[in-house]
Amino acid sequence: MAKDGITARSKDYSQWYLDIVREADLADYAEVVRGCIVFKPTGYAIWEGIQSGLDARIKETGHVNAYFPLLIPKSFLMKEAEHVEGFAPEVAEVTHASGEELTEPYVIRPTSETIIGYFYAKWVRSYRDLPILINQWANVMRWEMRTRPFLRTAEFLWQEGHTVHATEQEAEEETLMILNDVYADFVEKEMALPVFRGLKTDSEKFPGALRTYCIEAMMQDGRALQAGTSHNLGQNFAKAFEIQFTDQSNTVQTAWTSSWGVSTRLIGALIMAHSDDDGLVIPPRLAPIQTVVVPIYKNDAEKAVVMEAVARITAEWKGKIRFKIDTRDHLSPGFKFNEWEVKGVPVRIEVGPKDVEKGSVAMARRDVPGREGKSFVPQEGLTERIVALLEEIQAALYQRAVAFKESHTRSVSTYAELKEAIETGFAYCWWAGDGDDEKRIKEETRATIRCIPLDQPGGTGTCVYTGKSATKMVVFARSY
Amino acid sequence: MAKDGITARSKDYSQWYLDIVREADLADYAEVVRGCIVFKPTGYAIWEGIQSGLDARIKETGHVNAYFPLLIPKSFLMKEAEHVEGFAPEVAEVTHASGEELTEPYVIRPTSETIIGYFYAKWVRSYRDLPILINQWANVMRWEMRTRPFLRTAEFLWQEGHTVHATEQEAEEETLMILNDVYADFVEKEMALPVFRGLKTDSEKFPGALRTYCIEAMMQDGRALQAGTSHNLGQNFAKAFEIQFTDQSNTVQTAWTSSWGVSTRLIGALIMAHSDDDGLVIPPRLAPIQTVVVPIYKNDAEKAVVMEAVARITAEWKGKIRFKIDTRDHLSPGFKFNEWEVKGVPVRIEVGPKDVEKGSVAMARRDVPGREGKSFVPQEGLTERIVALLEEIQAALYQRAVAFKESHTRSVSTYAELKEAIETGFAYCWWAGDGDDEKRIKEETRATIRCIPLDQPGGTGTCVYTGKSATKMVVFARSY
Repeated sequence: MAKDGITARSKDYSQWYLDIVREADLADYAEVVRGCIVFKPTGYAIWEGIQSGLDARIKETGHVNAYFPLLIPKSFLMKEAEHVEGFAPEVAEVTHASGEELTEPYVIRPTSETIIGYFYAKWVRSYRDLPILINQWANVMRWEMRTRPFLRTAEFLWQEGHTVHATEQEAEEETLMILNDVYADFVEKEMALPVFRGLKTDSEKFPGALRTYCIEAMMQDGRALQAGTSHNLGQNFAKAFEIQFTDQSNTVQTAWTSSWGVSTRLIGALIMAHSDDDGLVIPPRLAPIQTVVVPIYKNDAEKAVVMEAVARITAEWKGKIRFKIDTRDHLSPGFKFNEWEVKGVPVRIEVGPKDVEKGSVAMARRDVPGREGKSFVPQEGLTERIVALLEEIQAALYQRAVAFKESHTRSVSTYAELKEAIETGFAYCWWAGDGDDEKRIKEETRATIRCIPLDQPGGTGTCVYTGKSATKMVVFARSY
Repeated sequence: MAKDGITARSKDYSQWYLDIVREADLADYAEVVRGCIVFKPTGYAIWEGIQSGLDARIKETGHVNAYFPLLIPKSFLMKEAEHVEGFAPEVAEVTHASGEELTEPYVIRPTSETIIGYFYAKWVRSYRDLPILINQWANVMRWEMRTRPFLRTAEFLWQEGHTVHATEQEAEEETLMILNDVYADFVEKEMALPVFRGLKTDSEKFPGALRTYCIEAMMQDGRALQAGTSHNLGQNFAKAFEIQFTDQSNTVQTAWTSSWGVSTRLIGALIMAHSDDDGLVIPPRLAPIQTVVVPIYKNDAEKAVVMEAVARITAEWKGKIRFKIDTRDHLSPGFKFNEWEVKGVPVRIEVGPKDVEKGSVAMARRDVPGREGKSFVPQEGLTERIVALLEEIQAALYQRAVAFKESHTRSVSTYAELKEAIETGFAYCWWAGDGDDEKRIKEETRATIRCIPLDQPGGTGTCVYTGKSATKMVVFARSY
């Protein structure tokens, strides 16, 4: 049975998601600013954890951060043909400032390839200036028609990497390195979410890219969520903005660029992948509060004894466990247990007068609901026990997600099987169709090719749709 | 003599600043986006250091981060009378999105009191919801007429804290706590900059505030730079947005709010306060690179020996010293020394074949130019020596700034003395004038009351301008 205020997943998955966002106090609708949300402290803290894990990986792989202007001259968007087609329909325009009309309007960046390309053209002169490996943490805006907290909002937060290279091969290596060593590594290790890594088909690639690579995760309703993309831009933007350099033999060459980004939609992925009908479930590595301590007492005398024990028990936690002691006096322990369950704190420690006598505490893990997840453990060695349990929960969530992904990914060989498979998960099949075929399948099933996985079986097979001989297998799914 | 490309401070302080920004590669002019700059990696890395030091203090004092929309309905600005007067003239307006005109235009936030006030009114119901202690890291936009890299740009980055309290006293305590424990503590300890802490006069306060407190630092040309402000907003915004709560006796009360912010202009302050005619000087705690190692060799055999020693010497630096080994082969050691001086790296270590033989290195400190700052020290114990030297440099820069501030702050008792004092620094004097007096002095001298220091001598004196009996002393200066 779902908790008060939370619709069961089995009843209405979509409503369940919105209920979790509200009950766990993650976001508020900014109805006065169309399609935008407020990232409330509990939601934003998850983003801070994501930022920290990604930023470390981005820097470890040799990149530095910088910051480019929010506003882009509207004419810049027009310089790359596919890019303008992809983004012009959804930009917000600044036409006035200081009460006067501007001679040329600006758009609020929907992504920054164009404005950054403009500067890179100024900065790059010689092969010695390459590679440029820059990342930016920023807000961007896309005037989407249908929005959904975290998953699709008019304004969102993200990081966007933009790199310049001397050769096509270097640009390709960068694009794949980001996909594997930064994005997939982060999402699997920190978010406890297994992903498919692959290439987008031409119909799904980034407007202006040569090739778009992506990681795709599976949500509990079997739909796919694109968790990150890494684009080899070829020379498309370098030509549009004239990013050129003189090579070792003093010849002027056009550079090769890449861009890659993940956004606050990862918060949505995190919520949807692990949570249950009791509320939010967060992997410990990204949990803003990893352990909550609820002291239990009936009167001041008991309170004094319990609080003394709580102070003693938690004395050495700082720097080892992110924790909170819930000292609110006007709420019952039961109310508090419920609240922290809804908010997804991985471990709860309860300390009452009897526990103090016995030198023990009650310890409950969020990922295993009810009695099974609760145990009574000695106060001695508790810190190490909790640290180990947090790692255990992290691994358990990942294993659960892996098992779910595997059991909901079906190898299919006919279109009928494909249609059935995408009702509950991913369909894995041979493919030799074209963009028109993809379009027809999308119209008929709402499913798209999420990616052509990097990991291919090799050999040939029969295309699930056209019946032609195929050399590649692809993953079809409905997506967020 | 100033370095190539850097105008001497004595010749043209203003040009010197622009030269440092360019030569140290801190920013680029975004001439295609009016009044904006690009925060280049070396400039942005300083901001990351500032963010990290401030964010830690903001969280230690009980605040959490959140994120509110970039766009604000234009009508929101109008709800607080002083606020609209202060900000409406410099906002950028979004009038179109997805190619269609919006029914109500949005402004890009120049500051977020109004949009945040709107949400706080929704969130606050009971005294139990208070205090709300939220901070936001964000970009803001003010369409300024005259801009200057970091110091005044149309778009800038900042943090803005917004809090709600049940009583006037709590709001006042918060406002002052932020000024002292967060802003002044950070600027003095990390930026090595002593500040005056004080209250703004009514003519200088934030539009919509009851009282504005500030910290003011002195630049090397004797001008003041407002490094941070903390506003007690009274009930002005709470009334405009109806932030109300029921108190313990179930009576509906209007809340009290505060807001406070520091911005990327701190980067400008850091540059101007410590740098010299040779380039940037950064306090070690905020230096992205604290120590650079320049290996010196003439051939491959020497290179092998030297690089082996460098690897050995730096093996244990990770986590203790932020360092870089300059391995570029196409540049001479002399060129590298110069470049790292211009870029302000606090400590330089040189290792040549002779040093390897002797088991020593050459160590140069950036804050003491020439031979005096260079010494030859043993490789043994080098890590601890550098760590200690970095602390010594941090302290030395602070002491130098304190001495400069003291020697350039004059107690004055006549208007003539005031006019003389503000040519080279701050004038400290008794004050009993009003806003009109301040205006006349500003017109005549370009100096303003920077603050009424919190630290007052007590007693009475004669107002420097009106000759009336005064109970407060103030600080006059020209400012950035």
